[in-house]
Amino acid sequence: MKNSETSKLNIEKAAEFMELPPSKVSELIEKGNLKRNWDEYYDIYRFQGHAPHMEDGTVLIDHHGTFELVRGFPKIKRAMLLEPALLNNFSEISSVAVEEKMNGYNVRVIEFRGKLIAFTRSGHVCPYSTERVQNFLEPDFFREYPDLVVYGEMTGPENPYVQKEAYGIESLDFFVFDIRYKNTGEALPVHHRRELADKYGFNQVRLFGDFSINSASSKIMEIIRELGKKGREGVVIKDPAMVLQPIKYTCSESNCSDLRQAFKFYNEAGRDYLYSRVIREGFQSHEWAESEEDFMERCLRLGESILRPMKKTIEQVESGERISDEFRIRVKDRETIFKYRDYLDRFGLYIALGDIKKIGDEYVAEIRRMNKSTNDKTLAMLEGQLWS
Amino acid sequence: MKNSETSKLNIEKAAEFMELPPSKVSELIEKGNLKRNWDEYYDIYRFQGHAPHMEDGTVLIDHHGTFELVRGFPKIKRAMLLEPALLNNFSEISSVAVEEKMNGYNVRVIEFRGKLIAFTRSGHVCPYSTERVQNFLEPDFFREYPDLVVYGEMTGPENPYVQKEAYGIESLDFFVFDIRYKNTGEALPVHHRRELADKYGFNQVRLFGDFSINSASSKIMEIIRELGKKGREGVVIKDPAMVLQPIKYTCSESNCSDLRQAFKFYNEAGRDYLYSRVIREGFQSHEWAESEEDFMERCLRLGESILRPMKKTIEQVESGERISDEFRIRVKDRETIFKYRDYLDRFGLYIALGDIKKIGDEYVAEIRRMNKSTNDKTLAMLEGQLWS
Repeated sequence: MKNSETSKLNIEKAAEFMELPPSKVSELIEKGNLKRNWDEYYDIYRFQGHAPHMEDGTVLIDHHGTFELVRGFPKIKRAMLLEPALLNNFSEISSVAVEEKMNGYNVRVIEFRGKLIAFTRSGHVCPYSTERVQNFLEPDFFREYPDLVVYGEMTGPENPYVQKEAYGIESLDFFVFDIRYKNTGEALPVHHRRELADKYGFNQVRLFGDFSINSASSKIMEIIRELGKKGREGVVIKDPAMVLQPIKYTCSESNCSDLRQAFKFYNEAGRDYLYSRVIREGFQSHEWAESEEDFMERCLRLGESILRPMKKTIEQVESGERISDEFRIRVKDRETIFKYRDYLDRFGLYIALGDIKKIGDEYVAEIRRMNKSTNDKTLAMLEGQLWS
Repeated sequence: MKNSETSKLNIEKAAEFMELPPSKVSELIEKGNLKRNWDEYYDIYRFQGHAPHMEDGTVLIDHHGTFELVRGFPKIKRAMLLEPALLNNFSEISSVAVEEKMNGYNVRVIEFRGKLIAFTRSGHVCPYSTERVQNFLEPDFFREYPDLVVYGEMTGPENPYVQKEAYGIESLDFFVFDIRYKNTGEALPVHHRRELADKYGFNQVRLFGDFSINSASSKIMEIIRELGKKGREGVVIKDPAMVLQPIKYTCSESNCSDLRQAFKFYNEAGRDYLYSRVIREGFQSHEWAESEEDFMERCLRLGESILRPMKKTIEQVESGERISDEFRIRVKDRETIFKYRDYLDRFGLYIALGDIKKIGDEYVAEIRRMNKSTNDKTLAMLEGQLWS
């Protein structure tokens, strides 16, 4: 209670810093568009739900006298047809840098009161990512460049959100794909960023190269075919100067892998999620001028990605099992496991903690997230209820 | 203007007839839940948007002193798993009647001021269906049974909504599947209804037979397989006494045919429409205990139903064509063509009238409905715009 009084946000000053009228800041707080964090992150606020001129997930840090903004990660738009998208969006420049888009979850890292902390896309401080990131990034970087934010992908099998074996990672790792200035969100140019990250020994997403605008689409198609075979996601195509907005483009296999995961829990699967992936397949199929045989293979891949996991779920529930999402997390501090559980609790995501094993100097926790909705719906259908 | 005054609804009397408080009826009118028709159907009102205790599309007819209700067609729920659904929903009876569910649009027919009129599902008087139904149903029936409403499916290739060749119909025809009392909506028992319809020479949906509850699911699966091969839709399973609610069940081929039609206009395709059809395939695949080969065939059928029409649309737009929905209607009175166009106009459905040819004593009109949204989106992608 005392804490909440002493650390109350100075609205006048915060408003001045953000160049907004104080009444606007008060309104954002009242309407829940500017929310404060809890516990040791009490002085960190996040923007949510379309605050004006501020990306969702942008974070405001109150240093009691001064402020800092960590801008939300700008949504990267998608090319449906690669070649026209390249020509249309990068007409002002002569070449693009192509980097791998890895499949995991993205976090932003800064130093806060002597410790690295990791923000999720929505601007929450994730206890698991925060603990992990201490191992991944050299803190000297943040002391040298206190005005920079490191954006990267957390990926690997010991991942609460997207478990991927495709990268040959044993547990979890962090790959830098962007470095941006605090406050403005301005990005470092691609090659400058890569040199800097390299200097501090950071892992980085793979750079496939810089390609001239005219040759890029055929080069990227080749890359996408190779990535697809390896079960990887796709690429982000960037203006090397990071002035024009990047574009993403993904593999058919990755779309289908998303669908396989989603349709295991078919009653939770989003309609838009299904629709958007189907649409990508349609455009890719057109642009790649596939043979009839390749096209039929794509159709089969799409259909199977939807139906096989769903069929398996029904079989499992019929046989008396219940489906659930299972994953592992690995931590140095045993406490992080419980902090992470409590953190998910706040969002209504209830997990069941299973075995916790000590392996070396770390703890590995087995976690299950029950998918009540799909289990219940499947049971209802098996009992002869009607759909609607 | 004069007409609107003389035919004003007597709210007190209408309320008394419907057993609602007059204030409720006034409220329904104010809120747009009870809407009057236009022109010669000015004395006909329809319920829309969840009026209490009244199915959507229910029609109130004001005879200036007396009233009648034509109840909306009750939504038929769907079996996802046939056998448990049969056992669970018809446990009180020993056998079910299985009739064909035809693919068209359903209308309700009554006599109004000396002429047959056809209501659509939403309770509008459709000028095309109204003209057509004069040829299909013997008016004596309605004079003999003024308290009955005939429910049936309009199907065939000359159909503005669902063009089907599968029934061997040359133009359009009407198949009775229900006869219900005005006001209460109570249905005639299946065999009584069929005898009555037969007596007046009405076309009827096919009755596959009455099956004991225990043998019904295997019998229906056989029927569904056969119907699927012929490109037909499915069945409705009924309590012969029409006391318990009927259940519908459809063929995989029909789901896929729906998707093929929808994904031609992929940018207009509903997310829920896609999702629901995919889900049906998953459950059917499970219940039918398919071989791996049959399962893969189903996956391919599903994927192809989505991707092939979409791919074709993109190709067409790229080649400079624009996609559109094309169909024909056939009428006796040339005026009906224009009345029907104006009728669609009221719903914001704009059509382009093409050639009108005289064939025998009838007029055949070519109609095109442009799908601006899919054309525009496809063009935008071909020009290199990004998805979002």
